[in-house]
Amino acid sequence: MPQAYYNAKAGITKLTTETGAGQWGTSLAFACAQFGLECEVWQVRASYDGKPYRKIMIETFGATIHPSPSDLTEAGRTALAADPNSPGSLGLAISEAVEVAAQDPNANYALGSVLNHVLLHQTIIGEEALLQLAKIDETVDLIVGCTGGGSNFAGLTFPFLRERFATGSGPVIRAVEPASCPSLTQGTYAYDFGDVAGLTPLLKMHTLGHDFMPDPIHAGGLRYHGMSPLISHLYEEKFIEAVAKTQQDCFAAGVLFARTEGIIPAPESTHAIAAAIDAAHAATAAGEETVILTALSGHGHVDMMAYDAYLRGDLIDHTWDDTELQESVARALTKLPAIPGA
Amino acid sequence: MPQAYYNAKAGITKLTTETGAGQWGTSLAFACAQFGLECEVWQVRASYDGKPYRKIMIETFGATIHPSPSDLTEAGRTALAADPNSPGSLGLAISEAVEVAAQDPNANYALGSVLNHVLLHQTIIGEEALLQLAKIDETVDLIVGCTGGGSNFAGLTFPFLRERFATGSGPVIRAVEPASCPSLTQGTYAYDFGDVAGLTPLLKMHTLGHDFMPDPIHAGGLRYHGMSPLISHLYEEKFIEAVAKTQQDCFAAGVLFARTEGIIPAPESTHAIAAAIDAAHAATAAGEETVILTALSGHGHVDMMAYDAYLRGDLIDHTWDDTELQESVARALTKLPAIPGA
Repeated sequence: MPQAYYNAKAGITKLTTETGAGQWGTSLAFACAQFGLECEVWQVRASYDGKPYRKIMIETFGATIHPSPSDLTEAGRTALAADPNSPGSLGLAISEAVEVAAQDPNANYALGSVLNHVLLHQTIIGEEALLQLAKIDETVDLIVGCTGGGSNFAGLTFPFLRERFATGSGPVIRAVEPASCPSLTQGTYAYDFGDVAGLTPLLKMHTLGHDFMPDPIHAGGLRYHGMSPLISHLYEEKFIEAVAKTQQDCFAAGVLFARTEGIIPAPESTHAIAAAIDAAHAATAAGEETVILTALSGHGHVDMMAYDAYLRGDLIDHTWDDTELQESVARALTKLPAIPGA
Repeated sequence: MPQAYYNAKAGITKLTTETGAGQWGTSLAFACAQFGLECEVWQVRASYDGKPYRKIMIETFGATIHPSPSDLTEAGRTALAADPNSPGSLGLAISEAVEVAAQDPNANYALGSVLNHVLLHQTIIGEEALLQLAKIDETVDLIVGCTGGGSNFAGLTFPFLRERFATGSGPVIRAVEPASCPSLTQGTYAYDFGDVAGLTPLLKMHTLGHDFMPDPIHAGGLRYHGMSPLISHLYEEKFIEAVAKTQQDCFAAGVLFARTEGIIPAPESTHAIAAAIDAAHAATAAGEETVILTALSGHGHVDMMAYDAYLRGDLIDHTWDDTELQESVARALTKLPAIPGA
């Protein structure tokens, strides 16, 4: 909403963006409708094909949506030439949306995660959590959040980190990422591009390499090769922990959550739920009382085919051999531009 | 939830039910999960085929679901013999669920609308609305609600009617039904069966005939031949009004609501929204200030194919010729059991 507002105020008439699972694309479509902006969305093909309802949802809010890679951009055409069946990635969808915006003086590109201002906008989540906890006079021992590019995680945890920096104490903070796209737990902390085509500025972050093509798991919102620079820095400084989960464990947690709470969570959110349940079981086993905070990053109503696959036992888990992954990251990082004069 | 609770308390181990759009089937599946009850749902085939995500949702909450008509019951087999492609109806799905429960001493049938106790459970909606209005010191001039069997409508309006009966004044109350299934506006006020097979007690209500097969419109939750006896009585006594709307107007209102409020409403709910918008426009035209209350009976996340059809211009409106409809109702009513000794 703030991105649409400030762009409209600056005289921009159109925003382009990427989306994975589609929650960000939906939000921006609605935000653009509020300020009379045109909205064009590139959705990662793995998610576009896997959940057709999300496409219609975004159209209902008034935006145009394309699968990525598309033949509408140079970045998309290059990817399609290399692999006509490419499932796409967030990095590639970003390249396409940036390319189109860069060629239109009336259009700007809006990013859904990773960058500082996006994380800042999301901190309303953590600010509300702090107020709610104060209202019931409760202190949190552990915060668990899912991480793709980091916006939901930072939104939930940064206000608590602010309190920690001010007071010197605070909860344990744990990021949960998919085992098939483990940027924090297995990535390299280095400067890299935020997109596949190398159109963005270089960002210092935990990265799997900007040309990394994640397995098409159902948690499309977590299929990003990098991690927000702010979160990467906090992880390096050991203010936060990180764990990786495979998708079958996550869906099991999602079904338990649905049958207990009456809410079907998004595949992304099930990562946080699974880790929160792990922590609750560990506390029970240790005979400790622990207050755990997590946030539901989205509903799973357009992900029912993924739940169906889980219920039928058809989900596949994917993890990375660490050596193989490190080599692939190192190769990607050799493709960065040389430092002038170095 | 109350139906599952009281049945579990009485030692029942399984509930059967019908569902149209699937909201009731989802609710009962979740409620049964809370009290360890088995849950078996017959969903009207038009909705079962039209929104596969709803089926998976109900399975995620732990229930078993069949399309109706099914070959699992005598009522279903009879309907399939007459028309193998039958889209089904709520009345027929009720017959199937009742038949299975009647043959199992450990199972009971739970109805999702129409009957007094179901309406009573839903009045939490109107009770909360009264408290919310008191909090902002506001009085309502008009309440608009959508009506299928009447549970959502009664839930919203009955607490306001209680206040009206106590004080002598209250808002105008308007029921909105689909033009293709107009039980209040075009039905006959008479005793009739609540289901197609004639397994239920006779209910005095506005009916289109218990063998009425509504057009397979997308608002599956409103495809019921009858209307709650309590609402029918209130309509006869002129405590409430009724209007009928065609589905294209309703979806147009749904899209406007989505782009304005950020919530995609269920096709059923769009009937109430469309009539509320009509009333707001009428008040503006008359230069009057009017406070309109409506309730969102459900989200439209599993109805995206219907929105897609609307956005592509593929929706068909259906209305009934009144003479034809009256003849069909009269024919159905000749099939009622004779009164003994009369």
